[in-house]
Amino acid sequence: MFKGKFTKKILPIAVLSTVAIGSLIGTVSHTDVQADGNYNRAKAKNVIFLIGDGMGVSYTSAHRYLKDDPNTPVAEKTEFDKYLVGQQMTYPEDHAQNVTDSASAATAMSAGVKTYNAAIAVDNDKSEVKTVLEAAKETGKATGLVATSEITHATPASFGAHDENRKNMNAIADDYYNELVNGKHKIDVLLGGGTSNFVRPDRNLTEEFKKDGFSYVTNKEQLLADKNAQILGLFAPGGLPKMIDRTEEIPSLEDMTKSAIDRLSKDKDGFFLMIEGSQIDWAGHDNDIVSAMSEMEDFEKAYKAAIEFAKKDKNTLVVATADHSTGGYSIGADGIYNWFGEPIRAAKKTPDFMATEIANGADVEQTLKTHIDQNLVALTPEEIQSVKDAAATKKVIPIDDAIEKIFNKRSHTGWTTGGHTGEDVPVYAFGPYKERFAGQVDNTDHAKIIFDILGNKNKHHDD
Amino acid sequence: MFKGKFTKKILPIAVLSTVAIGSLIGTVSHTDVQADGNYNRAKAKNVIFLIGDGMGVSYTSAHRYLKDDPNTPVAEKTEFDKYLVGQQMTYPEDHAQNVTDSASAATAMSAGVKTYNAAIAVDNDKSEVKTVLEAAKETGKATGLVATSEITHATPASFGAHDENRKNMNAIADDYYNELVNGKHKIDVLLGGGTSNFVRPDRNLTEEFKKDGFSYVTNKEQLLADKNAQILGLFAPGGLPKMIDRTEEIPSLEDMTKSAIDRLSKDKDGFFLMIEGSQIDWAGHDNDIVSAMSEMEDFEKAYKAAIEFAKKDKNTLVVATADHSTGGYSIGADGIYNWFGEPIRAAKKTPDFMATEIANGADVEQTLKTHIDQNLVALTPEEIQSVKDAAATKKVIPIDDAIEKIFNKRSHTGWTTGGHTGEDVPVYAFGPYKERFAGQVDNTDHAKIIFDILGNKNKHHDD
Repeated sequence: MFKGKFTKKILPIAVLSTVAIGSLIGTVSHTDVQADGNYNRAKAKNVIFLIGDGMGVSYTSAHRYLKDDPNTPVAEKTEFDKYLVGQQMTYPEDHAQNVTDSASAATAMSAGVKTYNAAIAVDNDKSEVKTVLEAAKETGKATGLVATSEITHATPASFGAHDENRKNMNAIADDYYNELVNGKHKIDVLLGGGTSNFVRPDRNLTEEFKKDGFSYVTNKEQLLADKNAQILGLFAPGGLPKMIDRTEEIPSLEDMTKSAIDRLSKDKDGFFLMIEGSQIDWAGHDNDIVSAMSEMEDFEKAYKAAIEFAKKDKNTLVVATADHSTGGYSIGADGIYNWFGEPIRAAKKTPDFMATEIANGADVEQTLKTHIDQNLVALTPEEIQSVKDAAATKKVIPIDDAIEKIFNKRSHTGWTTGGHTGEDVPVYAFGPYKERFAGQVDNTDHAKIIFDILGNKNKHHDD
Repeated sequence: MFKGKFTKKILPIAVLSTVAIGSLIGTVSHTDVQADGNYNRAKAKNVIFLIGDGMGVSYTSAHRYLKDDPNTPVAEKTEFDKYLVGQQMTYPEDHAQNVTDSASAATAMSAGVKTYNAAIAVDNDKSEVKTVLEAAKETGKATGLVATSEITHATPASFGAHDENRKNMNAIADDYYNELVNGKHKIDVLLGGGTSNFVRPDRNLTEEFKKDGFSYVTNKEQLLADKNAQILGLFAPGGLPKMIDRTEEIPSLEDMTKSAIDRLSKDKDGFFLMIEGSQIDWAGHDNDIVSAMSEMEDFEKAYKAAIEFAKKDKNTLVVATADHSTGGYSIGADGIYNWFGEPIRAAKKTPDFMATEIANGADVEQTLKTHIDQNLVALTPEEIQSVKDAAATKKVIPIDDAIEKIFNKRSHTGWTTGGHTGEDVPVYAFGPYKERFAGQVDNTDHAKIIFDILGNKNKHHDD
């Protein structure tokens, strides 16, 4: 399979339901399986599925060590660590590539179908495949998508839309409005970036959503003030600024997560919510360790909010994983047996933020010293000069690269690529049926298990 | 902790026994805990602990994809995949380094103590710490160490010896002979490389072991013919050749594993056996993907042999993990969304084997075409020329590097370092009490759990 040959056999749903059960735990206890063979669905009334885009094991490990309290004798566990259950395979089913992109991986997790890179909830023949969000809506549950990218970006899109190419973000926004389940909008809560895909010369989807009873908000204050069950919140023209670059008007992923859960949890039938920490991946593509750790922190806080809700609720399954890893990021590089958090903690803004200011004419040394804590990192004349040299281009990218290099070198962070990598990624699960996600699973198993727990008996499109 | 501050608190054994229990599984079932609070040790009469040195998640994932059957619709699970239970943290407690070496990591796993890099079962104050192998011998069990490195190398040494520095391999060999438990040799089976550390101008330990009733063997035929309970087998002056370079006289890791289990399992009190796939790490240091995959295969076969014994025996716990990852190895590099197994499968010998032949005067093109399957990889004139250029130096290392580069480039394998990296590594467990190793654990947890299962009540040296 990994070489890209295509002899796909779609397993019937009855078989699928047992595929993902790892050998570790064996099967779900019999008390949870009712006489009709269905699961006790009241136990998993709500499902919160979190995706750290690009969040490979180097990211989750580094995030732990960055936050470590040096005054204790151990490395403190992160929120994720507490609920690790295993790892998943990420390979796509693509004619040309065997390392996945986010669209293919998200379709695997949303619909249980391996497909080609760039596919948004469509199979290799470009036919639409049902997603767990759609299945949840069919059973009467409330649904939501939350992301720090455009809300029409590949990962959320693969749960709430269908398109042959992830690039068609306007068409994906149209799908969010146009595609109905039982005559109703299929997504009740949409929070993220991407205003430009909704407010367009040809169509203003924000007006259409409002006409149908949705609230429409564009900043944190409005988001927190609004109590409507259905809401569209768009907080930036494209992706949101990274956590450490955000102004007070822009909600964090935690803010959006809590706001989504508050609304969705009022539905007596339960809810399905997908939350993406979108820009861990973007930081990885940029080989930018400061931004990667900023976005890990943003994602962890959202995860913690989901777990805290689930602990109180007791009928909520929370699963978190990644779609793939990005950048070939390593903790340690160039023969050095150290990875230092201080240089990363010193950054008060991302390299991209600083580079943009410099490209717009700000003084190099002043900008760097304003945004990098000189008590933690005393920049050398050579480091400042390297950014001055890049600033001569007056272009953001070379300046950004020069600043990133300082952090990579000081922290001993290694990178091998501007793209994705193919190693397995961690899986975390909490709540009812968490054991079904344990051990070595495949990215398609997530959808298969969630379909099963939802009791979705609709045949797969090409059975 | 990760920054290297030292405020160590040693937990009492009673507390240690619960530290490692992940939140996933909860506690061991009550039926296994006897009235005296001890575990049902008959259930875990034997413990086989396997360490893939350097075997990070990129290695285990790549190994799966390399072996994939392209004619089936899925990526086949490896032997490891079947028993994945979680991941472990690997950081050491070292004043100067926060990425571990193999000695510190092995001491954590053998003795439950974080220590400095290079420490062989000694604490930061250089005092000796008891290992699980020693604890097993105290309870009357048979014990063994098997490795493809020198059997005195850091990993096995940290289970069977004590030294302030891993470099003292002669002293470590002395420890294997001199250090007695209850008046008896503490290790019954020693199989690996490193004759030069046992047969020395100052001392011939092979004669001393023989005098005390051990068999001494130096090739596969002798190993298979011998049935003695106690044996020293040394099959190379240093480390063994890598799997694909071995001649028929040299046993595989699987051969040594089976031979060790055959002997040790005759002890009515049970046994403890540590098996190391030593040279996955060496390949990683060399940024040599061909050798890395050769050694993964060698290690997997040994693991399978251990699992097959445990399945029949039913009272054997098998744990496998890594001490750290090596090389910053990534599946995919330089922006390419592919990782190809064909170039790696084409290699019939390691780059180092070919480089040594060429440095000794063999024709470059002839050597490459003999040892690289030209049906899978048709070498280009530029590739051959790159090795010819390196051959002009008449030195193995530049020639080796040039050959490795061909495989790295064709397979899209990335590397960031010639050293180790700090990300978490996978943990696999099978048999009684496997659930205690599940979730996110620390490398010290392995020893703590095994001490506990063994019923070792001796206080830690500095309690």
